[in-house]
Amino acid sequence: MDTWVDGQPADALSLKDRGLAYGDGLFETIAVRNGSPVLLDRHLERLARGCQRLAINLDHEAVVRELVTCAGDLQEGVLKLIVTRGDSLRGYAFDPSVQARRILSGNPPATYPNTHREQGVRLFPCATRLSIQPLLAGLKHLNRLEQVLARAEWQDGEHAEGLMLDQEGRVIEGVFSNLFLVRDGVLITADLKRCGVEGVMRAELLFQAESLGIPTDITDITLEQLQQADEVFVCNSVYGVWPVHAYAALSWPVGPLTRKLQTIACALLDA
Amino acid sequence: MDTWVDGQPADALSLKDRGLAYGDGLFETIAVRNGSPVLLDRHLERLARGCQRLAINLDHEAVVRELVTCAGDLQEGVLKLIVTRGDSLRGYAFDPSVQARRILSGNPPATYPNTHREQGVRLFPCATRLSIQPLLAGLKHLNRLEQVLARAEWQDGEHAEGLMLDQEGRVIEGVFSNLFLVRDGVLITADLKRCGVEGVMRAELLFQAESLGIPTDITDITLEQLQQADEVFVCNSVYGVWPVHAYAALSWPVGPLTRKLQTIACALLDA
Repeated sequence: MDTWVDGQPADALSLKDRGLAYGDGLFETIAVRNGSPVLLDRHLERLARGCQRLAINLDHEAVVRELVTCAGDLQEGVLKLIVTRGDSLRGYAFDPSVQARRILSGNPPATYPNTHREQGVRLFPCATRLSIQPLLAGLKHLNRLEQVLARAEWQDGEHAEGLMLDQEGRVIEGVFSNLFLVRDGVLITADLKRCGVEGVMRAELLFQAESLGIPTDITDITLEQLQQADEVFVCNSVYGVWPVHAYAALSWPVGPLTRKLQTIACALLDA
Repeated sequence: MDTWVDGQPADALSLKDRGLAYGDGLFETIAVRNGSPVLLDRHLERLARGCQRLAINLDHEAVVRELVTCAGDLQEGVLKLIVTRGDSLRGYAFDPSVQARRILSGNPPATYPNTHREQGVRLFPCATRLSIQPLLAGLKHLNRLEQVLARAEWQDGEHAEGLMLDQEGRVIEGVFSNLFLVRDGVLITADLKRCGVEGVMRAELLFQAESLGIPTDITDITLEQLQQADEVFVCNSVYGVWPVHAYAALSWPVGPLTRKLQTIACALLDA
């Protein structure tokens, strides 16, 4: 794994970093294909939104430069960018003029069984629920203990992902994916105004569906609506689209809209 | 600032650390007086509870040894211990056998104006609300973005602390303190089963009050109950007790039970 801090090769971080102290920062996990970061503009857009919301002072031009350079070096794989607010004063207060720190690591391509994309996956019913916090909803921030707890709920190979509800029982997302339903030809995904991560692949698939004239709906989803879905799939910016064939006692066929959007994701991600 | 990682002098951290990646860890901020960590058993007890809840594999004996040694070196000041789950595999999953990392830093004594303890403080009414997450409630974990956002709401010197409500409007705690009310001779503090940090000084003051025969009540607190309180104060393990004389349009006198508990905290903390 090659790693850089603020554009320089480095393998260690200041112990005063606020990412460590408070999870005070954001991250992006970016697929690299043929030496280029995939969906770079969408990643940068979400990162900028996060920096604005958290008042993190990031050199966005340096980020683009470093991502493009490192993707060129990596050729195929996954770049992980962590942006932290930089070093800490004592306590939660921060100096708004401090420059954010950029931590970049290059990783080999993710490997998942082909069956995940071909036959689909079973979702584990996570007992860990997402807390409701509109101030952080949508952001890919570094406070991820809920995901750590949820992912620790299953160890078997039978479940490729887990499904997370919010504290009030709405269907939100996977532990490391967004969730889509198809019902009567409409592509439906959860409204993430209370919790959840606005995934880059989610945004891209919504955009692609709209371009194809497929109606979309970003809304609150109940377990009953999940049950009644014609198709279900999960997505993220690294693996693309996995059909969901089962969740607890529910099951669904792998449907045509899932396959259509999977083909689009594959075209972006497959080397 | 002197810093140690796993008992060795160090000033840098692995970029793979899960504390950085996910806030996957816990911390303790411990006053040091005459070369000894103050309320050490209570800090260790909360840390152990956190490790158990998060399934973090910590060498507790090494923690005690390092805290005692570093406190002896520091003599007077504040030790900050961060415990992380160690380095990451790719993704949220973790190897439960991995040993946690211990990051310790020695800092000079905290300095606050004497007026805070003598005349009391005004609390800022934070708009940032605490999200409800029973799985993490009470723990001093590293997911602290809510506190970062809340603390950024005021810059003036007029407010020494801020008051945080939960998403449903209950009165919970300060940004870096716990809150107590006194009403008709009863010492009242918020039930932290949904959110909040179970402070070490909070636990000590509850214990001391009970030893003195003062009735205590750990319960849900409304803004109306805050308004009707006879006395209000905040506390933590570094500064002890600050009377609260004002919050928004509300004000309170500095009362006798506040002074009695403040004296107890001072005896523990003052060099």
